[in-house]
Amino acid sequence: MTTSDARQATPQTFRDTTAPLDRRVDDLLGRMTLREKVGQLNQRLRGWRMWRRDGAGFALAPELDEEIERWGGLGAMYGLLRADAWSGRDWANGADAALSVDVVTAVQERVAAGSRFGIPALITEEAGHGLQALGARPLPVNVGVAATWRPHLLEEAAARTAAEARARGVHLALASALDMLRDPRWGRAEETFGEDPVLAAAFTRALVRGYAAVPGIGVVLKHFAAQGAATGGRNQSGAPIGARELDEIHLPAARAGIEEGAVGVMAAYNELDGVPCVAHHGLLTGLLRDEWGFDGIVMSDMFAVDRLLRSAPSGAHAAALALAAGLDLSMSDESFADIERGVADGMIPVEHVDRAARRVLALKIRLGLLDAPVPAPVFSPGPGERDLVAAGPVLLTNRGGLLPLGPGVRVALVGPNGDDVPALLGDYVPPLPDGAGVSLLAGLRRTFGEVAFEPGCGLAEPVDGGLERAAEAARAADVVVLALGSSGERAYDDDFAANGAAELTGRRARATTGEGYDVAEVELPAPQRALVDAVAATGTPTVAVVVSGRPLGIACVAEACGAVLYAWYPGPDGGAAVADVLAGHREPLGRLPVSLPATSGTLPVAYDERLESAPRYVDAEARPVFGFGAGLGYASFALGDASVAGAYPDLVVSAPLANTSERDGSTVVQLYGRARVLGLVPRRAVLLGFAEATLAAGASATVAVPLLPDAVAALGDPDRGELDLWLSLDGPGEPAEPLTAPLTSSEPHHP
Amino acid sequence: MTTSDARQATPQTFRDTTAPLDRRVDDLLGRMTLREKVGQLNQRLRGWRMWRRDGAGFALAPELDEEIERWGGLGAMYGLLRADAWSGRDWANGADAALSVDVVTAVQERVAAGSRFGIPALITEEAGHGLQALGARPLPVNVGVAATWRPHLLEEAAARTAAEARARGVHLALASALDMLRDPRWGRAEETFGEDPVLAAAFTRALVRGYAAVPGIGVVLKHFAAQGAATGGRNQSGAPIGARELDEIHLPAARAGIEEGAVGVMAAYNELDGVPCVAHHGLLTGLLRDEWGFDGIVMSDMFAVDRLLRSAPSGAHAAALALAAGLDLSMSDESFADIERGVADGMIPVEHVDRAARRVLALKIRLGLLDAPVPAPVFSPGPGERDLVAAGPVLLTNRGGLLPLGPGVRVALVGPNGDDVPALLGDYVPPLPDGAGVSLLAGLRRTFGEVAFEPGCGLAEPVDGGLERAAEAARAADVVVLALGSSGERAYDDDFAANGAAELTGRRARATTGEGYDVAEVELPAPQRALVDAVAATGTPTVAVVVSGRPLGIACVAEACGAVLYAWYPGPDGGAAVADVLAGHREPLGRLPVSLPATSGTLPVAYDERLESAPRYVDAEARPVFGFGAGLGYASFALGDASVAGAYPDLVVSAPLANTSERDGSTVVQLYGRARVLGLVPRRAVLLGFAEATLAAGASATVAVPLLPDAVAALGDPDRGELDLWLSLDGPGEPAEPLTAPLTSSEPHHP
Repeated sequence: MTTSDARQATPQTFRDTTAPLDRRVDDLLGRMTLREKVGQLNQRLRGWRMWRRDGAGFALAPELDEEIERWGGLGAMYGLLRADAWSGRDWANGADAALSVDVVTAVQERVAAGSRFGIPALITEEAGHGLQALGARPLPVNVGVAATWRPHLLEEAAARTAAEARARGVHLALASALDMLRDPRWGRAEETFGEDPVLAAAFTRALVRGYAAVPGIGVVLKHFAAQGAATGGRNQSGAPIGARELDEIHLPAARAGIEEGAVGVMAAYNELDGVPCVAHHGLLTGLLRDEWGFDGIVMSDMFAVDRLLRSAPSGAHAAALALAAGLDLSMSDESFADIERGVADGMIPVEHVDRAARRVLALKIRLGLLDAPVPAPVFSPGPGERDLVAAGPVLLTNRGGLLPLGPGVRVALVGPNGDDVPALLGDYVPPLPDGAGVSLLAGLRRTFGEVAFEPGCGLAEPVDGGLERAAEAARAADVVVLALGSSGERAYDDDFAANGAAELTGRRARATTGEGYDVAEVELPAPQRALVDAVAATGTPTVAVVVSGRPLGIACVAEACGAVLYAWYPGPDGGAAVADVLAGHREPLGRLPVSLPATSGTLPVAYDERLESAPRYVDAEARPVFGFGAGLGYASFALGDASVAGAYPDLVVSAPLANTSERDGSTVVQLYGRARVLGLVPRRAVLLGFAEATLAAGASATVAVPLLPDAVAALGDPDRGELDLWLSLDGPGEPAEPLTAPLTSSEPHHP
Repeated sequence: MTTSDARQATPQTFRDTTAPLDRRVDDLLGRMTLREKVGQLNQRLRGWRMWRRDGAGFALAPELDEEIERWGGLGAMYGLLRADAWSGRDWANGADAALSVDVVTAVQERVAAGSRFGIPALITEEAGHGLQALGARPLPVNVGVAATWRPHLLEEAAARTAAEARARGVHLALASALDMLRDPRWGRAEETFGEDPVLAAAFTRALVRGYAAVPGIGVVLKHFAAQGAATGGRNQSGAPIGARELDEIHLPAARAGIEEGAVGVMAAYNELDGVPCVAHHGLLTGLLRDEWGFDGIVMSDMFAVDRLLRSAPSGAHAAALALAAGLDLSMSDESFADIERGVADGMIPVEHVDRAARRVLALKIRLGLLDAPVPAPVFSPGPGERDLVAAGPVLLTNRGGLLPLGPGVRVALVGPNGDDVPALLGDYVPPLPDGAGVSLLAGLRRTFGEVAFEPGCGLAEPVDGGLERAAEAARAADVVVLALGSSGERAYDDDFAANGAAELTGRRARATTGEGYDVAEVELPAPQRALVDAVAATGTPTVAVVVSGRPLGIACVAEACGAVLYAWYPGPDGGAAVADVLAGHREPLGRLPVSLPATSGTLPVAYDERLESAPRYVDAEARPVFGFGAGLGYASFALGDASVAGAYPDLVVSAPLANTSERDGSTVVQLYGRARVLGLVPRRAVLLGFAEATLAAGASATVAVPLLPDAVAALGDPDRGELDLWLSLDGPGEPAEPLTAPLTSSEPHHP
C-alpha cells in the first residue's frame, strides 16, 4: 500500500483541524483496514534497539521497517531514548538531547511514510522522575517529592520535564503516580507518593497539571490499579483486596489524575482478587469509562497481555480478553499481533478493535500528530527544582537542637552513602554525564570546609576495618554525619527480566531498591546497624542522613543519633541540598508521606488501617517508629483551638497558629478525620487536607485547611454518620477532643 | 409473672414432642412478651462468676437471679465450667466432673423456674480441643490435629469430647475450626486446621460429625468469617480482602461444617473489607441463610456487638444493626439489653427480634431442652485419642537415617521445652490435676532409660551458663534431643482483656502463643537459635523437637540438626507420643498443614497464593523453609504414573504406590490441581483431595484419590477452563507433566 491509495482521493476530513474530533476519527477509521487498525494497537518494539550510533549520526534497524510494513504504520514506539543499564544505552552509545531529536524525527518519517494516511507513532518514554534519557536531569523520587507536602513544586518540575520531553519529540510520558506505598518491602516503594490516598491524589493532580501546560504531550499514569497492595511486597504479585479497600486507598489518585486530564493510564501487572487488571472489565470499562468518563487510552504494562496465557489457551484469547475488558494499546506483547486471527475465528468482535483504535487515533489527533508541526517548547531548568529537592528531606529527631550545625564545626562524614552520586538517584534514571552531581561529601565540603570521610561498611556487607576507621574519624570530629540507607544503582552487567525489572539470581546486586529489588526485611541492614553502634560508642554527636527510596526500619538510628534526617533519593545535587539543611541555610520542610516500620514483622503500619484491638505484639509494638505526617523544622509552632465552618463536604477547619520560636519557619498543618458510619469499622484516621504555613519568628496567624475533594473518596463517600475532625502538625495521633460534623445529615440511620 | 399466667391454660403445643418443630416454636413465641424474647437473645453473664465453692457444695450468685428475673428466663449461659487463668478457676475453687453436674443442674433449675414456660438456658462452654473444664483432657491443638491428615481420628475424639461435655449438662460447644492460618504471627494460629481450605473443611466435617453422634449437644463453629486474614496477624484486626479470596480460602470450612449439621456459628470480631462480621448482612443472611440454608443460630463473639459502638451512636443502634444483619444470640454485650428501647424507638422491627428468638428457641427444642431429660451419655476415653496424639508430629528432616533412635542410645535432652507439661497443651485448656501429663523428659526416660536434661535457655531469654551446660550435656551423649518452640501457658496473674484474650502490657509473659499473644517475628527466638548453635558446635547428632502452636521460622534448626520433628502442642501426654515416634515404636505420620516461613519478612507463604512473578527477595528466598504437605516417615514410598477417571467434579486420580523400603509404613497421597480459567490468575496449586495409604515393606498397590466436594469451592467453582492435576507425597511442588481435565466443558470461552 502507498499513499496513492484510491481512498486518498476523498476529502481528508481526518486532517481537517476545524472538524470535530469525533468526525476526524470516524473518517480515518473508516478508511483503515483491519490490519491497519490492529497496527495502531501495537507497541511491540523496544525503541532503543531500533537504532544505533554510527559515527556522528545513527542507523535505523531493519526490524523497524519490517514492523511498519507489517501493519501499514505503527501505533506507538516505546523507549527510543531510554538510557539505563537494561537498555545498555550510555553516553558512549546513546542519544543526547540533540541526537534524540534526530532519531525521533527519522523514525517518525519512516512510520508516516509507511502509513497510507501518514500517521506517525506515539512516542512513549519513561519519565518517572524526570525523563529517562541522556542529559535529562532526574528529579527526586516520587516518595521524596510527596515528602515536601507541596504539590505546586511538583507541578513546576513536571512542566519542565514535559517541555524537555516534548522538545525531543515525545508524546507520552510514563509516570508512576497511582501505586500506594502499603508494603515497604516492595522495591518500587520510591515510585509512589506515599501511603496516603489524599496526599497521592494531590501530587498526581500536580503532575498532570504540569504536563497539561505543554501542548503535544500527555502523561500516562501508572499503574492502574492497586499494584501497591502486592502480596508480600513481591513485585507484580496479586492484590486479594476488597472493593472498599480498593476504592478508599488505591483509586483516589487515579480518579484525581483523570479529572486533571491524564491522557492515559497503564493497566497494572497485578490481579485484583484474582482478575488481572489488564483483563478487568469492571476496572477498565465499568469504572474508568462508564463511571469516570475517561476518554484517553489504556496501555498495558510490558508483556502484561501475554501473561494472560497463564490461563488463556492462545494469544488470540488473551487479546480478546484484554480488548473486551477495555485495553487499547499493548506494550511488547505478542498476543496483540494475533488480533486478526481472533477476529477471523469470531473470538474478537471487530467493534472491540474499532473501539480501541478509535481511542488511540483520537489521542493522536488531540496531541497534534496529524496536524502541522509546531515549534518545540523551550526547556529551561528553573530555580523551582532546587526548592523541590530541598523540601523533601524530613527531620525526624533533633535532640538538644543538634541541628542546624554551626559554621565552624569539624564534621566527619561516615557511612556507605557518603560519597556516592548514583545512590542519590533511585530507579528509572539515565546515567549522568561524567562528574555531574553533588555527593553528600561534596555538599558538606562546600558548606563546612574540610570534612573527613570513611565509608565504614557497604550497604549490606561489612568492610574490613571499617568500623574501627569510622570510630577513629568520629573521635576526631565535633559532629559525625552518618550517611546510611540504600541505593538503586543498577550495574550494566546486572540481570534483567524481559520487562526490565531486576532479575534476582542470588548473586549480590549493588542495588537494594528499585523495580525487582524487593526486600524481605525492611530494617536497616545489620552491617549499617553495626556502624551506627560503632559511631555512637564514640560519644561524638551524630546526625544520621538516611538516603533511600524505601521506608527503612531505623529504630536503632533514632536511638543512637541526636538527629535523623530522612533524605529519600533527592536527585543528582542532593548532597548540596542536604548540606544546606544541615547548616540551617534551608529549613527542613519535609513531613513523612509514609510510616516507617521498625521491622517487616510489624507490617502493615499505615496510619489509616481500620480501628483494631491488639495494639502490640509479644515481642514488639505494633506501631511504626516514625508515623505518617511526622517531621520537624528548626522553628517551632503551636496550634490553638480549631473551629469548623461549612457543611460536609465543603468544610474548612481553622485554628490559630503561632511560631513560638525565634526563627522564621514553615510548617504543614494537617487535617485528619474519622468517619463514624453505622455498620462500618472506622479507619483510625484519614488525611482530609493540608496547608503550608510560613510565619516569621514569634508571629501568629489563622490557618484554614479545607477538606479536599479527594478526601471524600478516601472516606468511603459516606452519606450518613458523623465525622470527627482535628488538626495536627505531626501526623494523626489520637484525637483528644475532635470537632464533629454530620456527614450530609444528622438524622440517625435506621437499618 | 408466674407460671400461673392465664395463657398456660391453653394446650402447650410447644411441649408436644410429636408436633413439628415449627409449630412448637410458633406456639411458644406466641406466648412470650417482648422482654421474654429479648431475654432469649442474651448471654450476658460470665458463668464462672455465677457460683462459688462453699465447703463441699457451692452457692449461686445473686446476679444470676437478677438476670433471670429481669428477662423471665435466660437465653444462654456461657462458661459456668470454664477453668483457666482468666476465669481464675483452678482445682482449689473450680468444679470437677461431679460438681459440674450439680452446678449446671442448680443453675438450670433457677432459669427454668424463672421462666413462665420453664425454658432452661443453653449451656455454652469452650471446647476448642477438649472441654475447657477441670478434669477434661485436652486434645492436641487443631493445627496439630490437621497435621495428621486423618480426619477420622478427630471424629472419634470429638464424639468423646461431646459425650464428656453433654454429661456435664453442656449444650453448645464452642470450637474453633473456621479460621485459616494465613498469617503465622497471629497468636491463635494453633486454633486453626492450617492454611488450606480443603484440609480445614475435612476436619471441620469430622468435628461436627463427632458431635452429631451425641444427642443433646451441638457445636458452634468459630469464627465466621476470615478472622485468619487479620491485618498484620494482629488479633481481631480487619480483613480487607475481596469476595473471591473470601470464597475460596475462608468459607469452604464453614460451608462444610454447616452441611454436616453444625448448630451454630460464631460471628467473628474482624471486619470484612470494612464491615464487621457481626453486622454483615451479606455474610450472616445473604450467604449463610439464603444461599446455604443454615437454620441454626449465629452467636456473637464476646462484646462484638458492643464494639459496633465505634460507629453506632447507641447500644440500641448496635443491636439493631446486628439483628438486621442476622445475629441471633449475643455474648456479654450490653447492647442486646437495649433491644426493647430500640423497638420502642422504631429502630428495631419486632420481626427481627422474633426471627432471632425463633432460631434460639428452635435450637433449644432441637437439643431437647424442653423435653423430658434423657440419661447422660457414657464417656470413656478410648485408644483413638492416643492415635490422634501420635499422628500429629511431622518429621521434616532425617539426614542419614538418624531417626529412629536405637534402644541403647545415650540421650541428652536439651532445651526450654524439655520438661514442661503445660507447654504441651496450648491455649483454651483447663489446669491439669497435679502430676498429670507426660513431659518430653518423662517420655524419653520411659523409653530410653537415663536421660540427662538441661534447659539451656528460656523460650525467649538466655539463662546464665545455659549454653555451656547444654554443650556439656551434648558432648556426654550419643544423641541430643533439642526441645524448642513456644508455650501457651498463661499465668493466673497475667493481664487479660475483657474477652479473656491476653492483654499485653509490655511486661514479659511466659506464653508466646495463644489468643492475644501475637508475635512480630515468627523466627525461632534468638536465645533458642543460640542454643541450637551451641549444641550443633559439639558435633553430637541432634534431633530437634519443636513444640509450638505456631509455624516458626526454623531454618537454622533444619541446617544444624540431623532430624527435625515438628510436634505442635500434642496435649498432656505428648511426651510419650513423641518418644514413641523418636524410638520408632510409631511411624511419623504427620504432614504439614501449613507452610513454615523463614522469617516474618517473607510472609505470606501459603502454598496456594496466585501465580506471581518475583520468586525471591534481595535478601531472602520468597519461599517457606518447609512447605505445606511436607513430612517424612521411616518407610519410603514411590508414586507411579497417574491417571484420571470420571469428569469434573467427580474425578478420581489414581496411581500405583510402592513401599520402597524394608519397613511397613503409611503415607498420605495428596492430589493437587491448578485451574486455568480464562480471565483469572490461577493459584499455584489447590489441594483437591488426599488419602492415607498403608503398605507393608516392599508392597505395592493402586491408590485412588477422589476430588473432594469442598475442593470445588476452593477452586472458585469454575464453570469453564481446564484443570491440571497431579499427585504428590510431599506437598504441591511444581507439576512437571500434570494430567489435564476440562472444567465442565472443553469449549473455548469467548469473552
